[in-house]
Amino acid sequence: MSKPRTRPFFPALDAFAMGRDTPRAFLEGCLEELARWEPTVGAFTHTDRESARRAADAATLRWRAGRALSNIDGMPVGVKDNIDTDDMPTGNGSPLYDGYRPRFSAASAQALREAGAVILGKTVTTEFASTQPRGTRNPWDPARTPGGSSSGSAAAVAAGMISGALGTQVVGSIIRPAGFCGVYGFKPSFGGINRGGSLDFLSQSCTGSIAASLEDAWILARAVAAEVGGDPGYPGLGGTLVPPEPCAPRRLGLLRTTGWTVASEDARAALEAAAEMLRRASVEVLTPETSASLAALEAAVAEALPETLRMLAWEWRWPLNAFAARDAEALSPSSRERATKARHVTREEYAFLLRRRHEARALFATVMEDHDALIGLTAPGAAPIGLETTGNPACVVPGSYLGGPVVALPLLHDGGLPLGLQVLGKSDEDEVLFAQASWIRSILQN
Amino acid sequence: MSKPRTRPFFPALDAFAMGRDTPRAFLEGCLEELARWEPTVGAFTHTDRESARRAADAATLRWRAGRALSNIDGMPVGVKDNIDTDDMPTGNGSPLYDGYRPRFSAASAQALREAGAVILGKTVTTEFASTQPRGTRNPWDPARTPGGSSSGSAAAVAAGMISGALGTQVVGSIIRPAGFCGVYGFKPSFGGINRGGSLDFLSQSCTGSIAASLEDAWILARAVAAEVGGDPGYPGLGGTLVPPEPCAPRRLGLLRTTGWTVASEDARAALEAAAEMLRRASVEVLTPETSASLAALEAAVAEALPETLRMLAWEWRWPLNAFAARDAEALSPSSRERATKARHVTREEYAFLLRRRHEARALFATVMEDHDALIGLTAPGAAPIGLETTGNPACVVPGSYLGGPVVALPLLHDGGLPLGLQVLGKSDEDEVLFAQASWIRSILQN
Repeated sequence: MSKPRTRPFFPALDAFAMGRDTPRAFLEGCLEELARWEPTVGAFTHTDRESARRAADAATLRWRAGRALSNIDGMPVGVKDNIDTDDMPTGNGSPLYDGYRPRFSAASAQALREAGAVILGKTVTTEFASTQPRGTRNPWDPARTPGGSSSGSAAAVAAGMISGALGTQVVGSIIRPAGFCGVYGFKPSFGGINRGGSLDFLSQSCTGSIAASLEDAWILARAVAAEVGGDPGYPGLGGTLVPPEPCAPRRLGLLRTTGWTVASEDARAALEAAAEMLRRASVEVLTPETSASLAALEAAVAEALPETLRMLAWEWRWPLNAFAARDAEALSPSSRERATKARHVTREEYAFLLRRRHEARALFATVMEDHDALIGLTAPGAAPIGLETTGNPACVVPGSYLGGPVVALPLLHDGGLPLGLQVLGKSDEDEVLFAQASWIRSILQN
Repeated sequence: MSKPRTRPFFPALDAFAMGRDTPRAFLEGCLEELARWEPTVGAFTHTDRESARRAADAATLRWRAGRALSNIDGMPVGVKDNIDTDDMPTGNGSPLYDGYRPRFSAASAQALREAGAVILGKTVTTEFASTQPRGTRNPWDPARTPGGSSSGSAAAVAAGMISGALGTQVVGSIIRPAGFCGVYGFKPSFGGINRGGSLDFLSQSCTGSIAASLEDAWILARAVAAEVGGDPGYPGLGGTLVPPEPCAPRRLGLLRTTGWTVASEDARAALEAAAEMLRRASVEVLTPETSASLAALEAAVAEALPETLRMLAWEWRWPLNAFAARDAEALSPSSRERATKARHVTREEYAFLLRRRHEARALFATVMEDHDALIGLTAPGAAPIGLETTGNPACVVPGSYLGGPVVALPLLHDGGLPLGLQVLGKSDEDEVLFAQASWIRSILQN
């Protein structure tokens, strides 16, 4: 099979506006890739080509009339299958939801419709957007995982079947699969996109975008937030509706995470080389050896993964018990294990872990007074072979734990396979992060 | 019709444990009241007597065997109909949910089952737990509203059909109907009870209890939190599983709210008299005239109602648009009005209102360093005549806006009808609030 190629949408907007191209023609290109790749990749749980064509035709008319609804009007997108859709089944990666047809669309799916996006289908999620994979393959090597839990979103974007997709992340479910599949990923600051109507209620989870370009990742997430805001109690993702202009950071920090100890030689070398290129471009790149606050932050997130998993066990107690009340046999072994673990987490332990996370976030805010952004790997190496797991989350869990915005840039490689550079920004300064990520990309692509 | 009488559950626990009484017999007493009152009151959207009898029999066996699951094992309860139940329909007070049978129970409903409570049925909520009433009548005078949005929960408890019920409050939906119906109400500190699976996603809403006694209100809410915790990211309601022992406050503050200017003479006199009784019992009761911080708090919550309504309009944008996408005609005029209003709230205004609320909460925390608790009316007067509205929320919205725990004590009267005394405690010190409310009750009942 040939190499997968993404289909960035943002560059087509001018052509739509000038009448040289149309959303319908753009969609047809995606449908060709769908026909080519989907039988191998298995990125979708459900597709509706005809409904997508109708939506693309409507978008075509709007662009022609100069009345596009948004910057994603006509964008072919996928919706992760833990997000309710009123016109497509929602399976949440579990047989417990077989045949489930929600009455109403979740906030983010409703927003896509209001903004004119063309929803091609529902993308595969691991069970309940948690651990258990559901068979999607990595387009770069079908023997490998695409990562998870937003497995289908990343794989479908990588193969050019869609330009963007909604994903959700509580540990590393957007940034990790984006890195493994060689596409862009964006996890907004906590609360940035309204999660209403998604099976995504956890205390550090977030809806975001996976896309063919950095620009697509921004316009997709930003257009969704423009329609439905952030989580209740949060202002939600703001900033310009068009992609932010590149802006050079002055000082970056290298966040190694516990993933560093198991990172491949290629991966380590790729990150070090990226840091060196940035230094040559006059950016100061600090490390835990040269920045005490960065060293303190590394220490503060050293236990981020086990502590996150303990918190998640507590937070999963109710729904897993409610699921088990209906049909315990329908739960995967990993969900049953989590339910068992949950029985041993106490309110006091949970409260303690929340305080620890709160303190880590306060430290993060302090670190970010001295650093414009942090950079790191999206995983210790390329996507592993096998479909039984979705890969090591050690590098990406700190971003979720700390709550700030993160982007994955598909600029590194490990053994010829894609690997992402993640960039973490200051909380609630997502727009600034994109401006700096855009500049970083321009340096590393040279 | 005779006067309604509540059926407190907590006093029966000893008799259950000693074998002198049984949950089944207790339930039968409730079912008699159900037969007597429900045709007039209309508190339930759905009841299941036989399933309740089976649950009560199971509880009877557990008590007999000395293996009660909790302090609410066998308690006849109602579940507000905006809370999903896997064995009863969930209507959310709207024809849009006609025939809706959730696959899984919401956290609070699941908790009731795990704790052994006897769910008699679903209690009437206004449309989406918001404005539009759904016909429930006040057992004290069927020409009057029971208040809302937890209309059925308060009315059913008042008439003795159940000992307790789940309610939810974003403006005053627990405390106001409790006051109008002469029963106890408890809105925990924000985040105190897990709202997962309820149509209750708003940034200041909270699940709580309405009950026949202060003890029932506590054991019900506390048992639910023990099973399913609080909202993700919050430790949830803690403290003793049995009702807290009475404890005298040293200093109280009188919170008049903007409701004071329209309060009836009886209502004002009742609150002043209560304050006087507490003073005679050696409690210092400050007023805005004698406490500068209290005066500042009164000023900070003077706009709590309009500001809350603007925030709610923003937060309702998505679901109202999703509802309208399915069937706009099925929305009530008040929901359509809210959807229209929502179009004019900007992200910037919402962010501004969040900051205002945050500042008011910081001020509240300061005030509570000098005051053990605040007292006030649950409404400017008794339940108004008519079923078209659920009464004035001016007195109760500050409790929701400030986020602290609130109890309603049915100890005041207006024109011979019930009126509640509300007691607001320090955030996350719900147990202390109950201890003080218990002591206040003992003084005012003498």
